[in-house]
Amino acid sequence: MKKNYLLTPGPTPLPPQVCEALARPIIHHRTPQFQAILKEAVEGLKYVFQTKSDVFILSSSGTGAMEAAVANLLSSGDTAITVEGGKFGERWTELCSAYGVHTEVIKVEWAKAVKAEEIEAKLKATKARAVFVTLCETSTGVTTDIKSIAEVIKDSEAVLVVDAISGLGVIDLKTDQWGVDVVISGSQKGLMLPPGLGFISVSQKAWKLIEAGKSPRYYFDLRTCKKAWEQTDTPFTTSVSLVVALNAALKMLKEEGLENVFKRCSKLAQAVRKAAKALGLELFADGSCASDALTAINVPAGIDGEKLVKAMRDNYGVTIAGGQAQLKGKTFRIATMGYLNEFDIILALSCLEKVLYQMGYKFELGIGVQAAQEVFLK
Amino acid sequence: MKKNYLLTPGPTPLPPQVCEALARPIIHHRTPQFQAILKEAVEGLKYVFQTKSDVFILSSSGTGAMEAAVANLLSSGDTAITVEGGKFGERWTELCSAYGVHTEVIKVEWAKAVKAEEIEAKLKATKARAVFVTLCETSTGVTTDIKSIAEVIKDSEAVLVVDAISGLGVIDLKTDQWGVDVVISGSQKGLMLPPGLGFISVSQKAWKLIEAGKSPRYYFDLRTCKKAWEQTDTPFTTSVSLVVALNAALKMLKEEGLENVFKRCSKLAQAVRKAAKALGLELFADGSCASDALTAINVPAGIDGEKLVKAMRDNYGVTIAGGQAQLKGKTFRIATMGYLNEFDIILALSCLEKVLYQMGYKFELGIGVQAAQEVFLK
Repeated sequence: MKKNYLLTPGPTPLPPQVCEALARPIIHHRTPQFQAILKEAVEGLKYVFQTKSDVFILSSSGTGAMEAAVANLLSSGDTAITVEGGKFGERWTELCSAYGVHTEVIKVEWAKAVKAEEIEAKLKATKARAVFVTLCETSTGVTTDIKSIAEVIKDSEAVLVVDAISGLGVIDLKTDQWGVDVVISGSQKGLMLPPGLGFISVSQKAWKLIEAGKSPRYYFDLRTCKKAWEQTDTPFTTSVSLVVALNAALKMLKEEGLENVFKRCSKLAQAVRKAAKALGLELFADGSCASDALTAINVPAGIDGEKLVKAMRDNYGVTIAGGQAQLKGKTFRIATMGYLNEFDIILALSCLEKVLYQMGYKFELGIGVQAAQEVFLK
Repeated sequence: MKKNYLLTPGPTPLPPQVCEALARPIIHHRTPQFQAILKEAVEGLKYVFQTKSDVFILSSSGTGAMEAAVANLLSSGDTAITVEGGKFGERWTELCSAYGVHTEVIKVEWAKAVKAEEIEAKLKATKARAVFVTLCETSTGVTTDIKSIAEVIKDSEAVLVVDAISGLGVIDLKTDQWGVDVVISGSQKGLMLPPGLGFISVSQKAWKLIEAGKSPRYYFDLRTCKKAWEQTDTPFTTSVSLVVALNAALKMLKEEGLENVFKRCSKLAQAVRKAAKALGLELFADGSCASDALTAINVPAGIDGEKLVKAMRDNYGVTIAGGQAQLKGKTFRIATMGYLNEFDIILALSCLEKVLYQMGYKFELGIGVQAAQEVFLK
């Protein structure tokens, strides 16, 4: 009997409450009944986004919300600063290019995080209207220190846009307190939903750029979103079932409490890191910026990384992620966000050990699991 | 005990098979398991779209797929022909305007359909690269004769783009046989799913425009979709649960057979029209172009149309749609597409009669239901 366990950095597993909500009969989106649901969803999102600003729900993946940020804030000929320290940082550059926005790119070694000083310097040297950063790089498992970056941007003309697709509801991000203008996210990570919803928060400073923006936009036009929201509505038919399920997930996050969620994810990630070290495996991300959302681990010499991931999935039903882009075959990634607890991590590690053992990697069986158990006992 | 019945022209009710599929544990989107699901979905969509061309699944509402058509086919400064005979025809004009595309608008009385000769004449007078039409206007219940329009466009330089959001899997649309270049649709109508997926089919003729297109696009870039599809993949994380549910819905459509689905919807719509006439109510759409997807009925003199719809919904759980835009309060709309059969129509009509009676409208109780029963007995 093979059972399936999902430990990929998106999608993350669905809680039974979410599955139940998804299976409910559909309701019409322009009824008082759905308006109440939408209102509850937006209020819950504001709690998770730690903001009092507008938060909009888009029927798209997180990338759609990223495009909404670029298309609304910037016009062709504008300059923006992007940070490329992984595949998703590169996406900001690609998006800007698609809209004719000139990018000043800060290249960062894939295992490291950008420093606030680098952004400060670039900001002084250019007339950037926006700075695009990634809270947690899903391709590398690196977390960026948003607080210090917000600090250096706050008094400039530029707005700070954070891709928090893999970080929202996992890692602390004090949107209002730190002064982050735009935060975008998606449904299939910390929010424990299927993919299909994008979210975006918009500060007053960002609204000024949006109102002046000249890029073509319709489906992702935030001005239309704002106007519709005045009537507790969305501009186009929203993904009703996912919004209903969103409330089930938000309820769980509220009950656990955001601070406790952060602590849980942090402990899970710590356990993965300790286990990897105990197994003699190297962590990909620099220790100073290791993410609590997921951990990228280097495939040890002599082991085929792609075969490792396939064997865990196909032979034992434990799905983790392989390396992305230039890291294909070189790393594997274990998620520690969403509907996961300590025992999910233990089982994933025991499966990892089993397959590593079968593939001829030399280590003391159980040593990784034990290291994780020790973390969880504390 | 109030039970809920949904007869709105999108979303339409979900079959239990779809609800069950939505509630399944999530799987990762980049696995052989999901690739097989994606392949099955695209093959099933080709059956429903009646095409051998590419069909792409977008994580968006139908409007997102409409934007994909405009942003990929046209560039700023191009000319397109749009047909405004309702709210959704106007959306094509709005979308073109957002992308700097000049529109030659054919205005059509809201109860009527555009004629092929009107399009032919406009096509001769302009250098339009694309003609945008609406298969079934959800705001009016009017169906457009796509076959005759395709005939006059076929040998021109222009491509024909059909918004079949409310018509796909409801009304016959022979994409390849008639020569329709681009068909767009959404998940929440004839396809019996929650909203959240957009679909688009693309002919060879359309690909030439897409490859030459200069509009900014990223999330909806069909070139990226095509490239990803070569690896049985999507460019961005797709709405996994909705795609899984799509296969459940497509299986039902295949088992019933597309021709039988069309016949069923046609009979349901005929019953609604006959019932309305028996009740002394006027149909909004001209008899020559009445849609089989939904029927718009004029609110009789002395009755408050908005109160009628509210009373049916709030007092009895039967949700139909009111009039849209300029028809607000003047019409109400009953859907006859998706997971609906004769008894759903009978119950909706009996509720309509009950509320009309309570509101003081004079008619012989049961006469509408009886007229529908007669249609279904044939």
